[in-house]
Amino acid sequence: MKLTILGCYSATPRTLNNTTAQVLEINNHMFLIDCGEGTQVQLRRHKIKFSRIKHIFISHLHGDHFFGLVGLISTFRLLTRETDLHIYGPKGIKEVVTLQLKLSDSWTNYNLIFHELTSKQSELIFEDDKVEVHTIPLDHRVYTNGYLFKEKEGLRKLNRKAAEKANINVAYYRKLTQGFDVENEDGVHIKNETVTKPGPKPKSYAFCSDTIYKEEIVPIIENTDVLYHESTFLNQHKHLATKTKHATAKQAALIAKKAHVGTLILGHYSTRYDSLSLFKKEAQEIFENVELAEDGKFFEF
Amino acid sequence: MKLTILGCYSATPRTLNNTTAQVLEINNHMFLIDCGEGTQVQLRRHKIKFSRIKHIFISHLHGDHFFGLVGLISTFRLLTRETDLHIYGPKGIKEVVTLQLKLSDSWTNYNLIFHELTSKQSELIFEDDKVEVHTIPLDHRVYTNGYLFKEKEGLRKLNRKAAEKANINVAYYRKLTQGFDVENEDGVHIKNETVTKPGPKPKSYAFCSDTIYKEEIVPIIENTDVLYHESTFLNQHKHLATKTKHATAKQAALIAKKAHVGTLILGHYSTRYDSLSLFKKEAQEIFENVELAEDGKFFEF
Repeated sequence: MKLTILGCYSATPRTLNNTTAQVLEINNHMFLIDCGEGTQVQLRRHKIKFSRIKHIFISHLHGDHFFGLVGLISTFRLLTRETDLHIYGPKGIKEVVTLQLKLSDSWTNYNLIFHELTSKQSELIFEDDKVEVHTIPLDHRVYTNGYLFKEKEGLRKLNRKAAEKANINVAYYRKLTQGFDVENEDGVHIKNETVTKPGPKPKSYAFCSDTIYKEEIVPIIENTDVLYHESTFLNQHKHLATKTKHATAKQAALIAKKAHVGTLILGHYSTRYDSLSLFKKEAQEIFENVELAEDGKFFEF
Repeated sequence: MKLTILGCYSATPRTLNNTTAQVLEINNHMFLIDCGEGTQVQLRRHKIKFSRIKHIFISHLHGDHFFGLVGLISTFRLLTRETDLHIYGPKGIKEVVTLQLKLSDSWTNYNLIFHELTSKQSELIFEDDKVEVHTIPLDHRVYTNGYLFKEKEGLRKLNRKAAEKANINVAYYRKLTQGFDVENEDGVHIKNETVTKPGPKPKSYAFCSDTIYKEEIVPIIENTDVLYHESTFLNQHKHLATKTKHATAKQAALIAKKAHVGTLILGHYSTRYDSLSLFKKEAQEIFENVELAEDGKFFEF
């Protein structure tokens, strides 16, 4: 599971601060999460192949999270993309994209498939044989969802020597990796766990931005390996966080602790602060394993 | 008259190539012309004060000319702007901007005044006591206008010594700079040109992008000091220019020559070419005084 932060600042893009966008590589998927203005340039800068992006997840329709979307869609068209593009986001996203394509008389030559969200409950919105994606209903000034990306339980690892010794026909090996018991060549029932061990533990990633401190998300993100939680403000500006429906570094850490996540990544910083280390320090008073998102930073889990 | 090129490439923003946007400073106005994605960052990079921009002129609704507009409008709001903002552009521009503000529930606290254009004839769209702006109807794949910015004839320069010698009351000096004849203290009629000389020659700038080669614009831009004319392609790709309704460097030079402009600035380059000098060379075979637009380049006329 690889995560590239393309932008992690709030409000407005600046010379050295990009607004929210990140790419999650998970089980050969390349998911783009949010798409602030300038995301397509950030994708180029970090040499991420445009053609590998087939699914875009937009948390909410504030500009710092989606003003780069229509430009990216247009660039895909100019690059003569043919692959379907799935876009998940709040209701309205289809109207705003298609209006711009209509006005510029620039229809895409690939399928643009919108999955508009309206539910206030967590939903399964994407699933294939390896990954599923659920919404995480957040509480911000407009309708907002975070996204939970979960690898599915993979194949079990076969102990080939043990299987041979147990006299199992190789034709059953695949079935064993799938977790089933089998009969050996002598008709003896072989319990799966005697010849296999669990495959790699499935990974999970939760993206939560933008939101006020919301404990209701804890059961949804419980035990997630990595949680990205917005921390627009430090605790000293908690009143601003409450007023603008954002969270502080301390609050992000409280959520991480209550949900027993593995690692907390902070981001969506206000540019009012001189140093990001203040965010880390504040969060670590509550929760040890804290990382700071930074534009261009790459995490591998 | 000062011109800052914020972006001058066609189609799509890249790491080192910005799409169209430029700032014209003329008689204390700061006019923003076109607003491709990332323009607000380019404005910051070139230290152009956001508050000085009160008029934005959009040529057409292709993304590389206006996808940065809504982001700039939103940033103005975040900076608590209160000054009116006038936006000139094709019909539809109001709908697309207001839809995005509506979806993000982010209304501006300043007046956003749209001047939607539909005419296929040149129109006077802005005028104050010093400057006027006219549209230049262009021919592209969608409805497109260039813009002609003209300083008005300024005050005449008073020859104070001559005026004193002619025994004119100082109360009439202002009237003299305005070009009127006056009577002196002895009741003698004094012809204006005997005590004044012309003020500085009014400057003019024509922005023409995007367009196919269109001779009909020549009378509108005749004798303009500076003409920016798109040259997406070199003559070797004239067929592509015709197909996509763009112009070549040679065609831009032909327009400059026929219109007897002072200087031709080329821009809106396709990124397929290795060197911009090829554009200059091609144009100079037709018209001597050619400059190349480049991102971040500053011209003073």
